Amino acid sequence: MTQLVRVQNFNVSRDGIGAGEDQTLERPFGHVDPGRLFAWAGATASWPMRTEPGGSRGLDDYLTRDYDRNIGAEIMGRNKFGPYRGPWEDHEWNGWWGDRPPFRTPVFVMTHHPRESLTLADTTFHFVAGDPATVLDLAKEAAAGKDVRLGGGVTTIRQFLDADLVDTLHVTVSPVDLGHGLRLWDSPSDLLDRFHLDVVPSPSGVTHHLFWRR
Amino acid sequence: MTQLVRVQNFNVSRDGIGAGEDQTLERPFGHVDPGRLFAWAGATASWPMRTEPGGSRGLDDYLTRDYDRNIGAEIMGRNKFGPYRGPWEDHEWNGWWGDRPPFRTPVFVMTHHPRESLTLADTTFHFVAGDPATVLDLAKEAAAGKDVRLGGGVTTIRQFLDADLVDTLHVTVSPVDLGHGLRLWDSPSDLLDRFHLDVVPSPSGVTHHLFWRR
Repeated sequence: MTQLVRVQNFNVSRDGIGAGEDQTLERPFGHVDPGRLFAWAGATASWPMRTEPGGSRGLDDYLTRDYDRNIGAEIMGRNKFGPYRGPWEDHEWNGWWGDRPPFRTPVFVMTHHPRESLTLADTTFHFVAGDPATVLDLAKEAAAGKDVRLGGGVTTIRQFLDADLVDTLHVTVSPVDLGHGLRLWDSPSDLLDRFHLDVVPSPSGVTHHLFWRR
Repeated sequence: MTQLVRVQNFNVSRDGIGAGEDQTLERPFGHVDPGRLFAWAGATASWPMRTEPGGSRGLDDYLTRDYDRNIGAEIMGRNKFGPYRGPWEDHEWNGWWGDRPPFRTPVFVMTHHPRESLTLADTTFHFVAGDPATVLDLAKEAAAGKDVRLGGGVTTIRQFLDADLVDTLHVTVSPVDLGHGLRLWDSPSDLLDRFHLDVVPSPSGVTHHLFWRR
């Protein structure tokens, strides 16, 4: 089986924005209210952060339930772990993901400032330097034959797209315009030179964009 | 976790027909050419019967790749196993599914004529008598906490719907009219008293119907 590099459940606005620029500890998405982009996912039965029973089991749930299917490792940018730039100062702070992070695999956090690995429940964060291809080699080895999820944020996904290292992307476009922020694309058609695309409007109001390599 | 009873990748025509009436050994779907109903699934990367690499990874693939997710057992009608009615005569014939059936779990074949269990690679067929609730109890126990897939055919699904034992259904409607045969429904709206429904047109031309219990 081919080991795929997959973007899963990544959320952007109609104008292609996935997060605000002015990230802080209190506001991981900066000026952007993540609820406006993530609400569709939170309503599903399989949402990985769900803590109570219930939720829908229609189209949107097929997308959220695929989040961990055959995933053996995740790669994320440093600012999906925390807001800090530069050398690590607070080694006691364990990131935004709580005591039981939803990843449940090794996670490779890309940073110019490596530090010791950190295990929280079923998830171990490794802090690694290097270009996308180098980090991907580490993640693929850790995934032991399973796929690698490319978790974001925007900047990290763009780096991997620029290096042509992504096999499939699921990007959900919410019917809101944000105007400014970190932009994944000008238009989904930016990727059509290298990817097939199914555009799938959901009854919930969002539109799923499913890309796979040509 | 709730143990769900799930219909997955079940295929009918626009007029609700899932198979022909005149089933034979050579024609499991009777007068119906199954290719007209199944082609969408065979084109996907995750089609369980796929033997060669390749295939699409868009919307249709999300449906086929969910086929075995968290499934611990299958229930099928006797005529999904083989065409024979009445007492078993040919105990050497091992059903339509070949040496490596795609189920890879215990499979409970509903029949008024029990016979010895049959193991083929990762699949064991158990031939059991009883009403839907009785057979479901056996399948749930065998599934050990995972979900139970209700595999069909039409008559079996209707029996389980009549007994109100189904939690989710994925039924794909192909843009063909067959006129006569075994009919799952007059219209998908037959089920709306008990189920939510997402109707999802696929770029491939079929329309996925995703039901979940209210």
